[in-house]
Amino acid sequence: MPGQLHEHTPVRGDKCAIWTDRLAVRFKNRRPIGIHVGHHVLGELGSLLRDAGAGASRIGAVTNTVVAHHYLPPVIKGLERAGYTACPIIIPDGEAEKNLERVGWLCGEWLGAGLDRSSMVVALGGGVIGDLAGFAAATYLRGIGFVQVPTTLLAMVDAAIGGKTAVNHPMAKNIIGAFHQPLLVLEDLATLETLPERQWRDGLAEVVKTAIILDADLFLYLEQNAEDILRRRPESVRHIVVTCAGHKARIVAEDETESGLRALLNYGHTLGHCIEALTGYEEWSHGEAVSAGMAAAARLARLLGLCGKEEAERQRALLESFGLPTRLPRLDPEALMRTLYHDKKTRDGKLRFVLSPAIGQARMLEGVEEDLIRKVLAGQ
Amino acid sequence: MPGQLHEHTPVRGDKCAIWTDRLAVRFKNRRPIGIHVGHHVLGELGSLLRDAGAGASRIGAVTNTVVAHHYLPPVIKGLERAGYTACPIIIPDGEAEKNLERVGWLCGEWLGAGLDRSSMVVALGGGVIGDLAGFAAATYLRGIGFVQVPTTLLAMVDAAIGGKTAVNHPMAKNIIGAFHQPLLVLEDLATLETLPERQWRDGLAEVVKTAIILDADLFLYLEQNAEDILRRRPESVRHIVVTCAGHKARIVAEDETESGLRALLNYGHTLGHCIEALTGYEEWSHGEAVSAGMAAAARLARLLGLCGKEEAERQRALLESFGLPTRLPRLDPEALMRTLYHDKKTRDGKLRFVLSPAIGQARMLEGVEEDLIRKVLAGQ
Repeated sequence: MPGQLHEHTPVRGDKCAIWTDRLAVRFKNRRPIGIHVGHHVLGELGSLLRDAGAGASRIGAVTNTVVAHHYLPPVIKGLERAGYTACPIIIPDGEAEKNLERVGWLCGEWLGAGLDRSSMVVALGGGVIGDLAGFAAATYLRGIGFVQVPTTLLAMVDAAIGGKTAVNHPMAKNIIGAFHQPLLVLEDLATLETLPERQWRDGLAEVVKTAIILDADLFLYLEQNAEDILRRRPESVRHIVVTCAGHKARIVAEDETESGLRALLNYGHTLGHCIEALTGYEEWSHGEAVSAGMAAAARLARLLGLCGKEEAERQRALLESFGLPTRLPRLDPEALMRTLYHDKKTRDGKLRFVLSPAIGQARMLEGVEEDLIRKVLAGQ
Repeated sequence: MPGQLHEHTPVRGDKCAIWTDRLAVRFKNRRPIGIHVGHHVLGELGSLLRDAGAGASRIGAVTNTVVAHHYLPPVIKGLERAGYTACPIIIPDGEAEKNLERVGWLCGEWLGAGLDRSSMVVALGGGVIGDLAGFAAATYLRGIGFVQVPTTLLAMVDAAIGGKTAVNHPMAKNIIGAFHQPLLVLEDLATLETLPERQWRDGLAEVVKTAIILDADLFLYLEQNAEDILRRRPESVRHIVVTCAGHKARIVAEDETESGLRALLNYGHTLGHCIEALTGYEEWSHGEAVSAGMAAAARLARLLGLCGKEEAERQRALLESFGLPTRLPRLDPEALMRTLYHDKKTRDGKLRFVLSPAIGQARMLEGVEEDLIRKVLAGQ
């Protein structure tokens, strides 16, 4: 359901800010969290913050070297135009930065820059920046406001929406974190034009996930428009971002702290996180790990008689058409099992998996037998 | 207002668990957080948790070497008797432990011990343990339940009640933290018998603070019973703990996240935190720093014409009768001013101080002139 054009505002040079959609996370009895989607809209952040009533004077913008090169200047300019003092911090690129040491360092930088309880943080970048800067904002002075400005497909359709923030521990991913809702989310589809191929596919893994667990129509759209999507045709990009962001917004509004429904979004993630942990968060990207995790979850569902062969096959085929892996890497099965038991979703020592009985549907299965899991891990 | 004896339950050997009072933090529309006060009641933790409906199987008990020696065994026994699996972690004693590295280490230990989202953490010790273990519980797996079992006067009357958790940053105290309410608070007055003299006085600083800002009757009681209090006579101990814990519970229930009223509890803390930071959190204890901070705040109030000479003098005299310092240490005034501006309560670069116009009353003053503060820092 692509939205409508709302307005055209000149921003800089020949680039025009074009709003394509405005979504929102609508929690009960709380101000909705706007998700603003458009083209060349980074320069609008300052005025969006003013509209949202952010009285902050200092804004700590956190980004990485790669994103800063392309997109930090318009953000800074827009903030300053709206009367804010921007305090940019640029960290190296990569998942390795998502750790507690970096959180402590960020807080020190913010103290030095004079950020106080009335200040805000802007997370400009992909999931790593959003998770890291969001968690630092959640804990700095016991929590200051922050804004998500995702610049990757993965962050736009998933990570930037819903208030989950976290850093990794050497023993497991995202194990230290907080629920901290952003004041607003600003998604500039134009930033996706410079996204490296591998990160584009990473985001597609989350798009496929959304389709499998929630939206059979989207799944069909992905199958039928795979070529356009791989080429990042603007209409396709817009369709998948707006559709997936909308699903995510609806689900987190219903279940903010993952007591039920929201856990379904972890389809493929239980095994995915293990793959990432056991390969040192380097070799496999998040999307690739989740893709292999989804394919394994589909095999597990089939072994359990929960879905037919065709359902599992369609999942595998779509993932592969996007160049995503559907086989687990060679890992010590015992180490994998141990890591599985460390998953955040484990309760009272029982393994829990999200499984899909049919395209567009998902449910949580608790107490899956270890033998079956070992079979799936062995690639059967 | 000491409460009534509720029940007598034999616990171990010749020691009987004696409940003296039950208070609660009563947030609107939420389950009240019980504050259970008694003598020799550590062994009751397990059954209190069962009564509170804690379905956890594993309990990560965090304490330090000193407290563990005296009080870990009855806690563990009580937990096991109630059917819980206790996973004790003992860290070194001291404020130096309250840092992000220790939080990461704790989370690793908990992962290793199999603590999951249904698990709970018990913080057994003083303010350092409560703040550290509480913050780790607030962020482990994005937050698991925890229980405060304070064993110092300071923690019983203040730190353990209200859900503030935090660790220090080399640049400032408690700068990284979270609001995370405990499931319940268990205060065993018998643990105060082994408290070192200096830590006893530390707690008295917070008791005096409570009296100055909220309770003129308590202030009079402290003046008239100073001797008994210094000797830790059981009836006096019980009176000050129950009175102060009751005040704290009432205030945090009205203002959980310190948007107004709760900030008054920081009387003496603005300067106190600076003293601690500039002396490396070692030389001055928290209570000593707060005591000097309160005396300075009284001088500032007098300079501003907000209170009379007698009011300030009574504060100084009571603090000194408890052996607490009322003069600031020799510190570089410029360094002190810079640290003041880093205080968590600073907003938009304006210095804010809690001041007391009369014993039993307090209010927040914003934009206090730097010149006046410099005079007070110079000891005038």
